[in-house]
Amino acid sequence: MSGSLNISGRTTDSVNALAGALVDRLVAGAAKYRIAVERGSLGELLIDAGAKVPGGIEAGLLLTEICMGGLGSVTLSHAPAAPKWPFWLTVTSADPVVACLASQYAGWSLSHEKFFALGSGPGRAQARAEKLFDELSYRDLADRVTIVLESGSPPPKEVVEKVAARSGVTPDKVAFIYAPTQSLAGGVQVVGRVLEVALHKAHELHFPLDDIIDGVATAPLSPPHPDFVQAMGRTNDAIIYAGRAHLFVKGSAAAAKELAEKLPSDTSRDYGRPFAEIFKAYKGDFYKIDGSLFSPAEALVTAVETGETFRAGEVNLALLDKSFGE
Amino acid sequence: MSGSLNISGRTTDSVNALAGALVDRLVAGAAKYRIAVERGSLGELLIDAGAKVPGGIEAGLLLTEICMGGLGSVTLSHAPAAPKWPFWLTVTSADPVVACLASQYAGWSLSHEKFFALGSGPGRAQARAEKLFDELSYRDLADRVTIVLESGSPPPKEVVEKVAARSGVTPDKVAFIYAPTQSLAGGVQVVGRVLEVALHKAHELHFPLDDIIDGVATAPLSPPHPDFVQAMGRTNDAIIYAGRAHLFVKGSAAAAKELAEKLPSDTSRDYGRPFAEIFKAYKGDFYKIDGSLFSPAEALVTAVETGETFRAGEVNLALLDKSFGE
Amino acid sequence: MSGSLNISGRTTDSVNALAGALVDRLVAGAAKYRIAVERGSLGELLIDAGAKVPGGIEAGLLLTEICMGGLGSVTLSHAPAAPKWPFWLTVTSADPVVACLASQYAGWSLSHEKFFALGSGPGRAQARAEKLFDELSYRDLADRVTIVLESGSPPPKEVVEKVAARSGVTPDKVAFIYAPTQSLAGGVQVVGRVLEVALHKAHELHFPLDDIIDGVATAPLSPPHPDFVQAMGRTNDAIIYAGRAHLFVKGSAAAAKELAEKLPSDTSRDYGRPFAEIFKAYKGDFYKIDGSLFSPAEALVTAVETGETFRAGEVNLALLDKSFGE
Repeated sequence: MSGSLNISGRTTDSVNALAGALVDRLVAGAAKYRIAVERGSLGELLIDAGAKVPGGIEAGLLLTEICMGGLGSVTLSHAPAAPKWPFWLTVTSADPVVACLASQYAGWSLSHEKFFALGSGPGRAQARAEKLFDELSYRDLADRVTIVLESGSPPPKEVVEKVAARSGVTPDKVAFIYAPTQSLAGGVQVVGRVLEVALHKAHELHFPLDDIIDGVATAPLSPPHPDFVQAMGRTNDAIIYAGRAHLFVKGSAAAAKELAEKLPSDTSRDYGRPFAEIFKAYKGDFYKIDGSLFSPAEALVTAVETGETFRAGEVNLALLDKSFGE
Repeated sequence: MSGSLNISGRTTDSVNALAGALVDRLVAGAAKYRIAVERGSLGELLIDAGAKVPGGIEAGLLLTEICMGGLGSVTLSHAPAAPKWPFWLTVTSADPVVACLASQYAGWSLSHEKFFALGSGPGRAQARAEKLFDELSYRDLADRVTIVLESGSPPPKEVVEKVAARSGVTPDKVAFIYAPTQSLAGGVQVVGRVLEVALHKAHELHFPLDDIIDGVATAPLSPPHPDFVQAMGRTNDAIIYAGRAHLFVKGSAAAAKELAEKLPSDTSRDYGRPFAEIFKAYKGDFYKIDGSLFSPAEALVTAVETGETFRAGEVNLALLDKSFGE
Repeated sequence: MSGSLNISGRTTDSVNALAGALVDRLVAGAAKYRIAVERGSLGELLIDAGAKVPGGIEAGLLLTEICMGGLGSVTLSHAPAAPKWPFWLTVTSADPVVACLASQYAGWSLSHEKFFALGSGPGRAQARAEKLFDELSYRDLADRVTIVLESGSPPPKEVVEKVAARSGVTPDKVAFIYAPTQSLAGGVQVVGRVLEVALHKAHELHFPLDDIIDGVATAPLSPPHPDFVQAMGRTNDAIIYAGRAHLFVKGSAAAAKELAEKLPSDTSRDYGRPFAEIFKAYKGDFYKIDGSLFSPAEALVTAVETGETFRAGEVNLALLDKSFGE
């Protein structure tokens, strides 16, 4: 009997150990997933899932589960919720707060000179380099760690050294998986953040994380675009204009109702245009975009202590088509 | 090459052995599933999947597959069949009659003094304590058995002893998994009975079980409620007012047509109100409720010997919303 | 780290080795899948998945993944895209060209005297007996091979010898899995060709296969029919009148647009009647049927180099109901 619950009822499993088993599966299936695996100059494991290789949707699904620290599952199925875009991802998690916030959230700035990337994945929970971890009790202590990068190139050695040092392991114990936003796998892993985005916004709204006991979310597979801004726009729009998340929370009905009402993307002043347009309007300054935009289009929140479900927002098919292509 | 078919073309695999492998997976993943595992006073394995622990939807999905004796699979995906309730379970089985009736059906009365529960799961097929087994040829002879209880507390030792004795094993070879109806895992495992309920009603209608060769069914995930009666009501309403089952049967088209027409819940005199209301109207006497209510809202029956498909009943969104919350 | 990419970016994994692991799972689960396994007179492995045994939908799902050489996944879920036929298959593949064309396509004529069958599955990629392989660089060199037959009887020894000789293995290293079109497993594995059919038609349209980087497709589960022609008709109609495929391709937008417009089944002169009627109108001469009919009803093609998605065709519910039964 492995594992026990910590005070907050969260998993004490190692997200890096769980994800490591999935990394091994990705590496063993490198040929079939059409990805490339090599060792970098410091011995780090470098997995290209869509830069110089085809990669694909199935590689992206596995990549998403790695991002979630082995605590989530993502499936693709036919869900005729948008007449033009019939294939949707469904994301569930054994422990959404740890899976999404301590692992999947792309919150670790790993830039160096011209290399710019936000690190995602279970390595974050070991490094705990972000302010967010002041509020997350989960801490990993694994022998090997994994970081996922939405990037068209592998990290420079300074970034490898930073991740290794901060994680307390040697560089050969660090795996980096990278795929550009324009690739199929890269796109899938961003759209696969639909549950994470809901949890992150809940956190921004100061909803107590310990009160979120479960969640499930969905968003349509977004078609890739060769232009980085357009590709990024589409992956975000899949969530912002068509994502649906259902959270199950403890606490009062009033708190659940308030969360539902504030959660959807349409509460943002920037709602109403494809993300790429918004990004350009702010001259590419990501941090000027209203943070409350990053959320599913529709939120359902069930207050398990009263049995009431509150919902707000709705899927916006017109904007989805405008973003993905009419 | 393991296994062979018995006369009726049913599996001869051990449902307790197949489920045991899933119990091991649940136990090994106790931390990530946020469940608790301990040994009781007689050495029995006690798994709390939602009483004093969070548990969750993923624990519930695995629990459902354990209930089905390892012969079924249940998935959760986005299926926009109800505007307000977008996530639905799909249940399939390699062998529905054995999986659903010999294993999953909650038919073994395991009450003792103040403890009241109906045992579900593969242990039933070894104990064969119910009248139903007079009509089911399947008999398990496993080294260890598993019983699932829709309950907020573990069974008293008298129940442990009864299950062990009746199964011909020592108490340390019995696993009990329990989760209250009000919990997420408990709710998932009840809604996950949508195929079983169709088979059970077919049996009540005296349709020959050997003529049922396959089936697939679906129902929406029901939101938990803290009150037992409301929680029980919702899990039942998910099936009664929104479940859909498709059975594939041998025999005449007339028999298949009759089965389809009699199968849906709307053939019951008690159809038309949320289950919790019905339950209260009968002053909580479960056995006064018309048994024909326990069935999916819509039935499809394909007569494989003629190729005809018959259907009756339909999803009742108004009643679903009334039960789950508008 | 197994495998590397060949020039065209396709997998170099052995489809027979990957499928062999799934065959082992099918054999180990023979009892639960309700199939029969035996050795033939030459030592060949013979797996009956629906002729003299019940088999079923789950056996069919695994059979489909075997057909795809272990490079695909197929799931069944509730997708309310057709009011009367709620359960749909979703097919994805790590490498669609190899999975669908080098493995899954039923292209190897394995008839002998009264035995007529078209071989499907990974054994084709080792035998490379078809003209199609002049244009597919993929070649397998496995120790054991698997052939799937849409047939109600096992192959005669001449066919076993032919497959073994052509594959460079002894007969005891050949597995044949057979299921008639009329069976549940047989039907599932044909409907599970919805992605393959899209790729095959793209190839017939001379679209460069190396430009197809990914795809996902869906079609409804078809109800079996005891008559071979009707059963075959329904499995084809599931794809022709209700299948949807989304391909992701390299190359120009013009080429993608042309592919989308020419791909759907409604471009065929034979479109507009249930397949069984068409087949009878041609007096059962399969080869007189317009080849362009064999395609999904609706095609989406995303040109990944421009980001544009083109679509044509649509699901035809009236014809689906006419074929499956009103």
